[in-house]
Amino acid sequence: MSTSTTRERMIETADRLFRRHGYHATSWRTLVEESGTPWGSIQHHFPGGKEELAVAAIEVGHAQALSYREHWFERADSVPAGIRLWFEKVASALERSGWELGCPIATVALETVNASPALAETCAHAFDVSQRSLAKDLRAAGIAPARARELAMLIFATFEGALILARAARSQKPLQLAGKQFEALLADELRALDR
Amino acid sequence: MSTSTTRERMIETADRLFRRHGYHATSWRTLVEESGTPWGSIQHHFPGGKEELAVAAIEVGHAQALSYREHWFERADSVPAGIRLWFEKVASALERSGWELGCPIATVALETVNASPALAETCAHAFDVSQRSLAKDLRAAGIAPARARELAMLIFATFEGALILARAARSQKPLQLAGKQFEALLADELRALDR
Repeated sequence: MSTSTTRERMIETADRLFRRHGYHATSWRTLVEESGTPWGSIQHHFPGGKEELAVAAIEVGHAQALSYREHWFERADSVPAGIRLWFEKVASALERSGWELGCPIATVALETVNASPALAETCAHAFDVSQRSLAKDLRAAGIAPARARELAMLIFATFEGALILARAARSQKPLQLAGKQFEALLADELRALDR
Repeated sequence: MSTSTTRERMIETADRLFRRHGYHATSWRTLVEESGTPWGSIQHHFPGGKEELAVAAIEVGHAQALSYREHWFERADSVPAGIRLWFEKVASALERSGWELGCPIATVALETVNASPALAETCAHAFDVSQRSLAKDLRAAGIAPARARELAMLIFATFEGALILARAARSQKPLQLAGKQFEALLADELRALDR
């Protein structure tokens, strides 16, 4: 078993368990056992223990979430349609996971914002990069830079909150509704620019 | 010390600690010690332990959050202005708490949605009541019932997500921006109805 495989399996396990149960409910022992990693090699990969593993898991989970959004934007006819498609695909994936696999950042962010400066910093950075990446796509569609930053923040806030409401209600509706609403809002703003 | 005081102090302590650190990081021992409650009387008030106390804490925290929104709606000149004022007041209160006191529901909801049916149900109910209450105010302002339900869901999703982004970034901006955006959106919809 290669070194990278062990490390990757630890991170994948941590990402999945933190999204499902949160940071504090997931013990180091569970992480080790579920990833099937020999105890000896863990110390080598994550000498900082659960906190260090969580930083890596958030970075990897965040990178995947970013690619996921970009993937659906590329497959849509327009940026407004891309937003709707992204929200819809997240909604159906959430239901398929039995409403278990939410945002790779939000639960850990809320749990550790006052307890771990390293995790708080990692979560804040991940949210910031997500917004910058979305703002870039909005600018490319023709939205002015300042407005693109605002809209990216607003869309991301709504995305995170809709994920919470969707999981709590076990319903795709909050995400579907938010996707449709922002598709309409963005299409209106782009039409106004064309006039 | 009256019976109701002991119970209330336990609930207030639980609400504060769960908002700050989450459900799993707050031990039963910490709850007992921080509330200054004699061990003997706790069993009497919460025979179901931490889970039962958390259900009560979410119900109380939710009722306070609901009154808080209504308070600012009553003080605003219009429903659109009420939304902006509510978001702004939550933003400044969050900063005053050292970015510690977020939503009384969200952290526990994310942590327990897959682990505690009782808590998941309590959180889902609290989110539902919040949306119904807001939808009622939107209907009173003239928004059609189906659209009022949609807008209430959207505004609540954005509120919850903006609280996460605000805490992570230690910035009032996500909440302030969302408040302004929904003030404008709602004012537009009401103007369109007048035409």
